[in-house]
Amino acid sequence: MKFTVNRSYFINNLNSVLKATSSRSTIPILEGIKMVLTDEGLVMTGSNTDISIELLVKAADDLQIASTGEIVVRAHLFSDIVRKLPGKDFTFDVQEGNQIKITSEHAEYMINGLDPSAYPRLPEISDDQSFAISAKTLRELITQTVFAVATDNSRPTLTGVSFTFSQKQIKAVATDSHRLSQRVVGVDNGPSEDLSLIIPGKNLQELAQLIADADEDLKVFLGDSQVRFDFDNLSFYTRLLEGAYPNVDRLLPATSSTSVQFHVSDLLSALSRASLVTHVNRTNAVQMEIDAENNRVNLTGNSPDLGKVEETVENLGIEGKSLTISFNPDYMSAALRASVTDIVVINFTEALRPFTVVPNDNEIDFIQLITPIRTF
Amino acid sequence: MKFTVNRSYFINNLNSVLKATSSRSTIPILEGIKMVLTDEGLVMTGSNTDISIELLVKAADDLQIASTGEIVVRAHLFSDIVRKLPGKDFTFDVQEGNQIKITSEHAEYMINGLDPSAYPRLPEISDDQSFAISAKTLRELITQTVFAVATDNSRPTLTGVSFTFSQKQIKAVATDSHRLSQRVVGVDNGPSEDLSLIIPGKNLQELAQLIADADEDLKVFLGDSQVRFDFDNLSFYTRLLEGAYPNVDRLLPATSSTSVQFHVSDLLSALSRASLVTHVNRTNAVQMEIDAENNRVNLTGNSPDLGKVEETVENLGIEGKSLTISFNPDYMSAALRASVTDIVVINFTEALRPFTVVPNDNEIDFIQLITPIRTF
Repeated sequence: MKFTVNRSYFINNLNSVLKATSSRSTIPILEGIKMVLTDEGLVMTGSNTDISIELLVKAADDLQIASTGEIVVRAHLFSDIVRKLPGKDFTFDVQEGNQIKITSEHAEYMINGLDPSAYPRLPEISDDQSFAISAKTLRELITQTVFAVATDNSRPTLTGVSFTFSQKQIKAVATDSHRLSQRVVGVDNGPSEDLSLIIPGKNLQELAQLIADADEDLKVFLGDSQVRFDFDNLSFYTRLLEGAYPNVDRLLPATSSTSVQFHVSDLLSALSRASLVTHVNRTNAVQMEIDAENNRVNLTGNSPDLGKVEETVENLGIEGKSLTISFNPDYMSAALRASVTDIVVINFTEALRPFTVVPNDNEIDFIQLITPIRTF
Repeated sequence: MKFTVNRSYFINNLNSVLKATSSRSTIPILEGIKMVLTDEGLVMTGSNTDISIELLVKAADDLQIASTGEIVVRAHLFSDIVRKLPGKDFTFDVQEGNQIKITSEHAEYMINGLDPSAYPRLPEISDDQSFAISAKTLRELITQTVFAVATDNSRPTLTGVSFTFSQKQIKAVATDSHRLSQRVVGVDNGPSEDLSLIIPGKNLQELAQLIADADEDLKVFLGDSQVRFDFDNLSFYTRLLEGAYPNVDRLLPATSSTSVQFHVSDLLSALSRASLVTHVNRTNAVQMEIDAENNRVNLTGNSPDLGKVEETVENLGIEGKSLTISFNPDYMSAALRASVTDIVVINFTEALRPFTVVPNDNEIDFIQLITPIRTF
């Protein structure tokens, strides 16, 4: 196995595979990247058992193949070496005993490779169940929900985002049982049969990063316990979470008795000031006092040790009754940062009942739910 | 005590004082900044027992004084609050029971201050022994030596940089006993009597940062166990290290049998490649083979676990005998990064004797010494 490749072109590809590679794995071979060179090109595979990435660097001017073969190379060391090589190109040449000679200008490395037959196989996922989705749509669905997944493992399904794909729409839901985010988008060519799957939140964050610049369609392939996303020259595998996702529809309040509209930026900066004092408290809570008569919203943060902050937050209209309610400012800030509109509507019912944050545009099907805190 | 101040102007000043404030101190009052407001202006003091900073914000258009007084305010909280306040200005108003009211536009904080009489006094340093030094000169002396101080505490004096000030020159020396850096610069108006003092390395790093943008003179005041640097509107206090600094002059070799000139950048990048494999070894050593006959310098890094790297480093001339020597690539890289010239001369005597790195310009009195490693 021997090839010569343009270094910066190669680094771009290597960076994607590195996302799936752990620098310290209990399975030592997974600290490596498997490299398989055929006449078609170089296939690089990285895996951390949670996600796997397989990437094809096509044979072309930038990649010249002298002889085919395969090897596993230590990912961390290899990436450091390639980054520091002096030349525009480098040559990668596997010699006897899995020794790899890497040369670039006057620098020559001879590093120990690992046996490629010891590298685990990736799951085979058939083409039977597959459909296309635009990269932009998927990226938005992820970033608008993934922050709300549970970070503790007491209910494993809640550490993932639940996706329901159908012919006409996709629904994504995440909740850690204190707050919830649900986004529904319409699509034209979803799967012919309805599909539900739960994908681990942190794997979705990696996927969202990988498709950050993509603007074409991804192809989604469904296996029994895995799902594969194909785009560009790359396949992204993630395991699925087993179990039934809770039915969250019944949690969403149908009516409200108080509604307030805010500019996202006004409320966000007031919350960041209030949380400066509340963050030291065990119960991190700010109080919002909605005075419907005087059309005034007051925000208060209080900490016995440090002091108190109080301010009037500009609102764009109050409907319904006056109300005083306390909530976690971090949940509210996360909900506001995910907003797709500059103005949001917050719908309350009672001081101890969950309230919703929605766009001020009925066309957008995006609802966030936050459970208040009892402070008395 | 009450003042109104331009927020961004205040933040610039506050940032300097914060450098001396610890967020967690065993002496709780030192987590605070002492603020003393007189008709002249606002004096802010921060201290972490190692260094102290006193800064005067002069009464002017940007600082309007309503009433004088003093208070201690929690540094971390106060800085966060000031940064997040909504307005261009803010008002700081000390009320009964050391309560501080901070207002800016529609936001109002009421935070708990601390008793200013509990704040420790800074050392008094008389004007008897003082002299001026240019900020640029001091900054260079620090950055060219401080990296070589000892980081372990087995010989406390070595954790500092030794300065010898005289009428005509300043000599700065740092060594951790494996390598040494000595810089001598000429001055016109040093102190009338010779002075020697050892200043803790990490305090010097803070000082170098503070004077990064200054281009005027600093005034240096010497106390018994402290030294004070005055510049702009700021006084920087640091404790001194006690004890005698070792006489390093006898360590510097007078002659050499092999000299090689290198472009700093060529040798630096070759070292960074070699250290990729040597960093995993307990003995982090690269080998340099100087072949005088063929005018060739080879650099080799080797690790039984990972592999080997070898390259020819371009040299700008070899004088004397051939030699093979091993050394820590990190020490050599630090010496090269401190270089003030693009080309350095490395002077060797024997494979197991310390060698020197000096500028290729005899006018510059800067010598770095590195002890080689025995690898056989």
